[in-house]
Amino acid sequence: MIQLYGGPTPNARKIAIALEEMDLAWELVPIDILAGDQLTPEFLALNPNNKTPVIVDSDGPGGRFVLWETGAILLYLSEKSGHFMPADPARRAVAWQWLMFQVSGIGPMFGQEVHFTHYAAEKHPYAIERYSREVSRLLRVLDQRLSEAEWLAGDSYTIADMATLPYLRRKLIEETGRYPGIERWAAAMLERPAVRTGMAAGVARAETVEGGLTGFTDEHRSILWGDRQHAPH
Amino acid sequence: MIQLYGGPTPNARKIAIALEEMDLAWELVPIDILAGDQLTPEFLALNPNNKTPVIVDSDGPGGRFVLWETGAILLYLSEKSGHFMPADPARRAVAWQWLMFQVSGIGPMFGQEVHFTHYAAEKHPYAIERYSREVSRLLRVLDQRLSEAEWLAGDSYTIADMATLPYLRRKLIEETGRYPGIERWAAAMLERPAVRTGMAAGVARAETVEGGLTGFTDEHRSILWGDRQHAPH
Repeated sequence: MIQLYGGPTPNARKIAIALEEMDLAWELVPIDILAGDQLTPEFLALNPNNKTPVIVDSDGPGGRFVLWETGAILLYLSEKSGHFMPADPARRAVAWQWLMFQVSGIGPMFGQEVHFTHYAAEKHPYAIERYSREVSRLLRVLDQRLSEAEWLAGDSYTIADMATLPYLRRKLIEETGRYPGIERWAAAMLERPAVRTGMAAGVARAETVEGGLTGFTDEHRSILWGDRQHAPH
Repeated sequence: MIQLYGGPTPNARKIAIALEEMDLAWELVPIDILAGDQLTPEFLALNPNNKTPVIVDSDGPGGRFVLWETGAILLYLSEKSGHFMPADPARRAVAWQWLMFQVSGIGPMFGQEVHFTHYAAEKHPYAIERYSREVSRLLRVLDQRLSEAEWLAGDSYTIADMATLPYLRRKLIEETGRYPGIERWAAAMLERPAVRTGMAAGVARAETVEGGLTGFTDEHRSILWGDRQHAPH
């Protein structure tokens, strides 16, 4: 059994999709980041970086196995299941490349854009412009790839695709028609029952976490980016 | 022969260290990002994401092989050389985890801190505070790990260490004594001739790129973050 510690966030959904696709037994352990669950001693013992998701695999190598960082979890689950990474060395390296493009680019930069656009208490035009432009640039790179290839890694569906879809939902809703390659690919992914189940994991409070507009308070800001977040461990 | 397209940046140094450690034949193809070399059609044909470094391996799987994203390049070189990743599944997954911690956390967040502290034409106290605190938080997580383990992945030196050191040089110089675990580990790395050679790769203009204080102009801002960067491909 794999326990997935997480909530209604894109990062947790990446892993929920993978667990469903790989038909691994799993359960969600809800972590409410707006309540500060990620700052408890119990959670920090799992992940000192205080980020969700974390997996605890009771049937891991050597027994109970704890792992964090979505890119690492996806590689681990792919190896455990034997699926969703190409066996061919060149194709596998290209899958790594697009996995890293999500992990190092789309994830952090979309996160900054959401912060300055929706969550920050003050509006900073320079930062909003900086990250909005970077998000658009990254979407153009992604759209170009998905206009030339069926899947991010080429002709096979991989963990790179699973990593990327959850971050795009809001953008696709906002900008329908601008990115035909991304839209074709997202539609193909959303036809898969495992993707639909994974995307629906932990939907409670999703409107607050993703939209940033409903019920988001200074107390939430303090938990996510304030002194409690930054207290020495 | 592996060609490394890059310049005097932390991301290129990660790969230079790995190539030296793995004793692979390589040469630097200088890319001057302040001159906009990364925006030429020739470079975009290698990496549509217009980021350095890129490797071109003339002896790759199936012949000439192009790869970008430092995390993917490090995994590729480790597999090619057969070194610097644990064979044991649990240890390998932990190495992935700390590699991803650099790629998704330290890299992007240190980059934002440098941007707002050194490069942005206007000073935004909110953004400077946000990223300075996040950098300090990430350094505490790293220091805790390196106070408990000899290397990031545990008892063996891996590509996760190679990925992380180049990002820390400036911080270690500025804050000596605050992070004893990091300092012990960095000193051990810098005793390795391959690390010293890799860290010295492409040193020209390093004072401009890293310090942000010497000779950095609005023209450089335009190249790195302006309309040229964001023109549709």
